[in-house]
Amino acid sequence: MKLSLIQMPVTADKAQNLQTATQEVSAAAQRGCDLAVLPEMFCCPYDNRCFPRYAEPEGGEIWQSLSRMARENHVWLVGGSMPEREANAIYNTCYAFDREGHQVAKFRKIHLFDIDIDGGQRFMESEVLSPGTAPAVFKTEFGVVGLAICFDLRFPSLFEKTADLGAKLMVVPAAFNCTTGPKHWELLYRSRAVDNQLYTVGVSCARDESAEYVAYGHSIVCNPWGDILLEADEKPGVLDAEVDFNLVDSVRRQLPVRSARRFRVK
Amino acid sequence: MKLSLIQMPVTADKAQNLQTATQEVSAAAQRGCDLAVLPEMFCCPYDNRCFPRYAEPEGGEIWQSLSRMARENHVWLVGGSMPEREANAIYNTCYAFDREGHQVAKFRKIHLFDIDIDGGQRFMESEVLSPGTAPAVFKTEFGVVGLAICFDLRFPSLFEKTADLGAKLMVVPAAFNCTTGPKHWELLYRSRAVDNQLYTVGVSCARDESAEYVAYGHSIVCNPWGDILLEADEKPGVLDAEVDFNLVDSVRRQLPVRSARRFRVK
Repeated sequence: MKLSLIQMPVTADKAQNLQTATQEVSAAAQRGCDLAVLPEMFCCPYDNRCFPRYAEPEGGEIWQSLSRMARENHVWLVGGSMPEREANAIYNTCYAFDREGHQVAKFRKIHLFDIDIDGGQRFMESEVLSPGTAPAVFKTEFGVVGLAICFDLRFPSLFEKTADLGAKLMVVPAAFNCTTGPKHWELLYRSRAVDNQLYTVGVSCARDESAEYVAYGHSIVCNPWGDILLEADEKPGVLDAEVDFNLVDSVRRQLPVRSARRFRVK
Repeated sequence: MKLSLIQMPVTADKAQNLQTATQEVSAAAQRGCDLAVLPEMFCCPYDNRCFPRYAEPEGGEIWQSLSRMARENHVWLVGGSMPEREANAIYNTCYAFDREGHQVAKFRKIHLFDIDIDGGQRFMESEVLSPGTAPAVFKTEFGVVGLAICFDLRFPSLFEKTADLGAKLMVVPAAFNCTTGPKHWELLYRSRAVDNQLYTVGVSCARDESAEYVAYGHSIVCNPWGDILLEADEKPGVLDAEVDFNLVDSVRRQLPVRSARRFRVK
């Protein structure tokens, strides 16, 4: 499976962000991409004040654009994430589409990003967003892909549950910051890969030093041994990677961790 | 709390191994050690053929020696691990003793080491050993300490359960090999520390290239941010480290991961 990790800049202009995403998905498809991945909050500044203003219901303008990108380029698409409005709640939601532009999965970020580091980053997503409750996967011709978003990375239990649903590749759009990024970004993608013996993919927006929330960048692909196959720097760019779902089976046979588990997640 | 990680050589001579451990625990106590830690299988070669021959019941010669080391030096002691015989079963067991030499905890390795890496390490502990079933902790004047052994490191659920019992420091005697050591040793100690926001301590025996099973060494201490505080090389030696249980509370307050969990381990 050929992946394209689209580490795009995110501006305050929703239309411009959609245009950037559209161009990059089209370019990726021309390079032979099977699955394109956009960043967390790819068309809305990562800012609690912006989430309500940019939020749309399922099937809205952003959703339509994503569906069109998948269909017109005949690629699988994980649409990073966006603020989704339903009734009075707003969620941090990731939609996935098949090559015909049909929605095949929807994941709402389960573990909201509440953090207050002494002398470092503070952010309280839960002041504005509501949490999701369920893991999400979709099946491709290569194998099953699971979804999670950013802070969810810190919760091994979600990855274990999603692997139990068959996921051999976890796509995790994310926007770490410059406090936790250098400390934990690589560590968490590597360890979630090793714990469950699957591929992990992280896609961040590019760093914008003038933004309210400065994203770390460093989009990444790890294999089931926990090796980093590719990692970006902080600048705008696209990483193309190829992953082999057979390696997941091979690693699980050589080092049978999942079948040896004695405690299970509820 | 002052720790001493005793990365001792392990020979086929049980009496000599006990003598080495006794000397090192005494020397550590003279340097002000509060908690001394011995390696996995510190007085028995790491070899399925040796486990039945070296196995002893609880209260046997090795246990008596450990209790005496703790009492005579007035230190807390995690006695690495040893083959324990009970009825017809053999376990890979870790005993912990207080400063008076009383046993305060007993942990039997839960996840047995079964591995068959293409072109690398093969080992099948489950051919000879039986698994434990329960986490174990003990309370010191500094805070609660939890126990696990080696391959248990690959199972986030055990660490989560032990943290739920109050552990702020996980002591994990281990003997990784030269296939998985370079790949995963640091990653697993760091990630278990970050997942549960506690200290992790790994103590290996020193490397012996002539042994059937060649241990990786690299005894290690990680803090609740996942930083490596100290790491040994592969040679015999003792690492002294100081850990501050207050840092666990501070990290958990700044980055409230444990209270944000949505799925729990059964």
